[in-house]
Amino acid sequence: MRARSVPLLAALASLSAADVTAQDTVRFEPTVQQPTFAVRDPVLTIQPGTVLISRTNFAAYYTEEGGAFPGEVGPIYVEGATTNDVLVVRIVKLELNHDIAASRIYSTFGGLATDNRVRLLNDPIPERRYVWHIDRERMTATTRLHDSEIAEFEIELAPMLGRVAVAPRGEEAFGGLWPGDFGGNMDAPEIREGTTVYLPIFHDGAYLYFGDIHAKQGYGEVSGTGLETSANVVLEIDVIKGKTIDWPRLEDDEHIMVAGSARHLIDAFRLAHVELVEWLEEYGFSRWDAYQVLSQLAESSVANIVDPAYTVVAKFPKRYLPK
Amino acid sequence: MRARSVPLLAALASLSAADVTAQDTVRFEPTVQQPTFAVRDPVLTIQPGTVLISRTNFAAYYTEEGGAFPGEVGPIYVEGATTNDVLVVRIVKLELNHDIAASRIYSTFGGLATDNRVRLLNDPIPERRYVWHIDRERMTATTRLHDSEIAEFEIELAPMLGRVAVAPRGEEAFGGLWPGDFGGNMDAPEIREGTTVYLPIFHDGAYLYFGDIHAKQGYGEVSGTGLETSANVVLEIDVIKGKTIDWPRLEDDEHIMVAGSARHLIDAFRLAHVELVEWLEEYGFSRWDAYQVLSQLAESSVANIVDPAYTVVAKFPKRYLPK
Amino acid sequence: MRARSVPLLAALASLSAADVTAQDTVRFEPTVQQPTFAVRDPVLTIQPGTVLISRTNFAAYYTEEGGAFPGEVGPIYVEGATTNDVLVVRIVKLELNHDIAASRIYSTFGGLATDNRVRLLNDPIPERRYVWHIDRERMTATTRLHDSEIAEFEIELAPMLGRVAVAPRGEEAFGGLWPGDFGGNMDAPEIREGTTVYLPIFHDGAYLYFGDIHAKQGYGEVSGTGLETSANVVLEIDVIKGKTIDWPRLEDDEHIMVAGSARHLIDAFRLAHVELVEWLEEYGFSRWDAYQVLSQLAESSVANIVDPAYTVVAKFPKRYLPK
Amino acid sequence: MRARSVPLLAALASLSAADVTAQDTVRFEPTVQQPTFAVRDPVLTIQPGTVLISRTNFAAYYTEEGGAFPGEVGPIYVEGATTNDVLVVRIVKLELNHDIAASRIYSTFGGLATDNRVRLLNDPIPERRYVWHIDRERMTATTRLHDSEIAEFEIELAPMLGRVAVAPRGEEAFGGLWPGDFGGNMDAPEIREGTTVYLPIFHDGAYLYFGDIHAKQGYGEVSGTGLETSANVVLEIDVIKGKTIDWPRLEDDEHIMVAGSARHLIDAFRLAHVELVEWLEEYGFSRWDAYQVLSQLAESSVANIVDPAYTVVAKFPKRYLPK
Repeated sequence: MRARSVPLLAALASLSAADVTAQDTVRFEPTVQQPTFAVRDPVLTIQPGTVLISRTNFAAYYTEEGGAFPGEVGPIYVEGATTNDVLVVRIVKLELNHDIAASRIYSTFGGLATDNRVRLLNDPIPERRYVWHIDRERMTATTRLHDSEIAEFEIELAPMLGRVAVAPRGEEAFGGLWPGDFGGNMDAPEIREGTTVYLPIFHDGAYLYFGDIHAKQGYGEVSGTGLETSANVVLEIDVIKGKTIDWPRLEDDEHIMVAGSARHLIDAFRLAHVELVEWLEEYGFSRWDAYQVLSQLAESSVANIVDPAYTVVAKFPKRYLPK
Repeated sequence: MRARSVPLLAALASLSAADVTAQDTVRFEPTVQQPTFAVRDPVLTIQPGTVLISRTNFAAYYTEEGGAFPGEVGPIYVEGATTNDVLVVRIVKLELNHDIAASRIYSTFGGLATDNRVRLLNDPIPERRYVWHIDRERMTATTRLHDSEIAEFEIELAPMLGRVAVAPRGEEAFGGLWPGDFGGNMDAPEIREGTTVYLPIFHDGAYLYFGDIHAKQGYGEVSGTGLETSANVVLEIDVIKGKTIDWPRLEDDEHIMVAGSARHLIDAFRLAHVELVEWLEEYGFSRWDAYQVLSQLAESSVANIVDPAYTVVAKFPKRYLPK
Repeated sequence: MRARSVPLLAALASLSAADVTAQDTVRFEPTVQQPTFAVRDPVLTIQPGTVLISRTNFAAYYTEEGGAFPGEVGPIYVEGATTNDVLVVRIVKLELNHDIAASRIYSTFGGLATDNRVRLLNDPIPERRYVWHIDRERMTATTRLHDSEIAEFEIELAPMLGRVAVAPRGEEAFGGLWPGDFGGNMDAPEIREGTTVYLPIFHDGAYLYFGDIHAKQGYGEVSGTGLETSANVVLEIDVIKGKTIDWPRLEDDEHIMVAGSARHLIDAFRLAHVELVEWLEEYGFSRWDAYQVLSQLAESSVANIVDPAYTVVAKFPKRYLPK
Repeated sequence: MRARSVPLLAALASLSAADVTAQDTVRFEPTVQQPTFAVRDPVLTIQPGTVLISRTNFAAYYTEEGGAFPGEVGPIYVEGATTNDVLVVRIVKLELNHDIAASRIYSTFGGLATDNRVRLLNDPIPERRYVWHIDRERMTATTRLHDSEIAEFEIELAPMLGRVAVAPRGEEAFGGLWPGDFGGNMDAPEIREGTTVYLPIFHDGAYLYFGDIHAKQGYGEVSGTGLETSANVVLEIDVIKGKTIDWPRLEDDEHIMVAGSARHLIDAFRLAHVELVEWLEEYGFSRWDAYQVLSQLAESSVANIVDPAYTVVAKFPKRYLPK
């Protein structure tokens, strides 16, 4: 099954010069999978302004054969990145490199049923696995439903990168399911090709991690999985010196965005929007005027409601920003 | 200022026959404003299949002159609607009929600050009022910001109907700020021209209410107000016999949707998505397959996080429904 | 079964003069049961300083025979009580007057399982009824468990008054399950003989309601019922002129207390404690010192986690109040 | 200031043979402070059945002089403890060994104000420090209030152990502020002399940690600190073979208890009570009868509402357990 995966990184031969603006290009083949976001010995050290060509680890864990829970790629030490700076990760390319994706429903994890964190006296729901066959040309995937009137179900794909992280503050080590102010497992569909992720830095070198490709995922990731698979990735990595932020910020052609994560969904919503107000202040809005215009123009989304902390993405349309 | 409002209902002369399919058209000029969603003497009785041409009450309350808190139009008694049926309200037209809208930030109400329901020891935030001048041709509105670097701020409009309700179950009477299983103040931008709202019925006759036009509102309605104004409205009102639902359902060209409301944002999210799973079951999905495909295809939005209950709209793209 | 209930009010013959300090005593036999807390025609008008001798309605609803959901007694119009005052209700006596109590577990209501407000995809839990036989001499009750190793289960009683309310603000009408700033269905075990309840007043006359005797109830009322029964009650009703409060306050020999109600349990906790800080300020503590001493001395309890809003009682030991 | 602390461990000379029943006694002087709960090289290895005489680290961090954030003592490797067993920690003695305690209110941490996790647009509250002078004879502490009408404020002490933990599952490392299924910073006043703590084991050897003495703390620990100080401690450490639990259980003379921790306070409440239902099942109650009797007899408390996860202690009176 896995034999038909795209030859590693060769797939990126098509990467044109126009796709990347940085001067240095580094190709990196990951060989270890990390179980946590934490400070540990770097697997790679790069300079700010590097284009990194690499891949994520395949999510064999989710398939019927099973396998280890997929670990992160990293940490990557970014020279000169300090706790007074912001790490910039531009998602240049996410190129699916497997012919299957896997998804599940769980009895102990998931957003619309009791699980290990939301325990009630009800009986747990059943577990199920789904294998999706990917058509990379048409960018679709098809699965066999279990007991619905429709047997075959096909959906359009929209690859996203579930996890982008720096090492969290202090000496804490959070497992791969956690999102937070360090980024992590935000599971935001907005983190896709063309999006730039800005992360706070809690340790010199930043200690960048990434992983967890979803070929497609709905908002909320309600059952606890997207279409879990892998991809070749091209990231342009840089540092903004002398600026700090509290929560991950995102930017694409249409929006400036903040990804706030907390276990109260309302607190995640507030964190994201308060940080977005602060971002609007940088554009010349006063605090209270920013609050007001956000009430008319915010376009928030709920990224996940299954992880140890939930993630909300607060969005403001760039066309309303002052020039 | 209010002198320039559009002559009542004359504005709807442009309403073409093609816009409405029902046989009976009723023009209704509201004269009382209701403070609650509840069973009370109807202001109008109609047959299922009626096109209602009416208007909402202007939100003078929000302007600098002030005024009473705007009440709902209704209740409208729908003949033959029983508690075994579903009320159908298709939003045919929402035509702004005022040249201003008003919005505010409050010290005692709002989603990103302490308020009467979220009390902390911090000092309250300041109060502010904003008047927006509406250009109905260009469908834009402009306001003067208070203390930002930009003085004039213009936004594009997207009129929506904040409140559509039936009388709630039992003998309860909820003020106009409440959403719930009876609909009410859902403040969902999705309730706009072209959207059909399906409501459960808790009393024979349904007791339909509507009101609360926002010329524009962001997701979450974070400061507690959209661009509060009024509109001429055309609603096609019907009944689906012999079918019951638990929460308001919405439908437009792109999505089937459920509006769940609860004070825990996560519970609103769950209510909306569980009811959406049940709706998908009506289309032939099994319960667990529906849960799985929702994890890949749901497109939820947060309608409001300021009202006594918060509202989440769970959405499923109609192109993935079986024919 | 109901034949053995204590002859109404005769039971209170034992009430000694020492038990009540007010001058006027009014005996009131309720004949209607109210379904909501709201402004409506009073069933009784009294003067401040009145001792009211009455009874609550028996909770036949919960028994195996069934019956209507038990309504409140009231409203009682208190002459001279205005929205600038505080209503004072001292619980002089709660005398159980029935030989049974009933309790239940529900599939659609309850705190440790999915219910109508906390909906998940799990199957609902089963429903069960329990009848408890009350021994008023020993102040115990015994029930037969369904399928445990112990068949008979006996507990000690501690009667409490689940509901004490004024009419809520505006024209809203909340069903008997609701607690709020108007008091209502707080389900606090602390509201027992010897406790004084202070309520804000939202309408002249206050419109006092009471009902919902629990012969015993655990903290949280997790299954949604206590030992539902009825009692003869003696309440001393008074008004504090020229003082306002935002949330119900309680007082007994040991503690000053505030009962905060909100659907987020953490918001109920905060409401109760912030109002308690404000009460401590009345005793001469500064705001921030009050916050600090509360961190060392607060003795909160969770009254209910099943009603439409949850209730937390924040307590401060009176022995630490300045003389 | 620290010069007057009680000579280490000498204070425990008074420990009588009757206080401990285990055969082996180990005296352990901690020399390193650990920043996280995690698997790392043990500082000590003991046998099940050991009485450990040791001390916690003083919370200099909280004093006006400041200092490092106090770390945990541990990890202690318990020979023979496996993931199929339960770790038992009986709190034999907590003997305050310092003449001061310190407490604070913070602008970025605390339960009744905005903080780093509950961000709103309000201005933050001010910061303050309090030094409490401990009288170990009278078991009281006195502090100077900042700006209240009373200057000196004295309270009675009730020492408790804020943190008891095993290493959390997997490779995660949680900072000292975190409670969880591994125990950790539960901040429960119930964890005091005479209480036995039962912890799940996620790694062979258990990796026991302890620390964080509060000379006194209110329920909720609302400002984010109790009376932070240090103590000599005597713990009897044992293992129950062949039994597993999901959440920390507590037991004293009066109650069996479960400490559930989650960021939603209601989820912490549910976790604690569902696990308590399961404990009652071990005593012969059926699941649904246990749910019912808990509704009448539960005596929950809110241990903390300030830590990254909140903690609720669900309690059942032992006098109602079958013999």
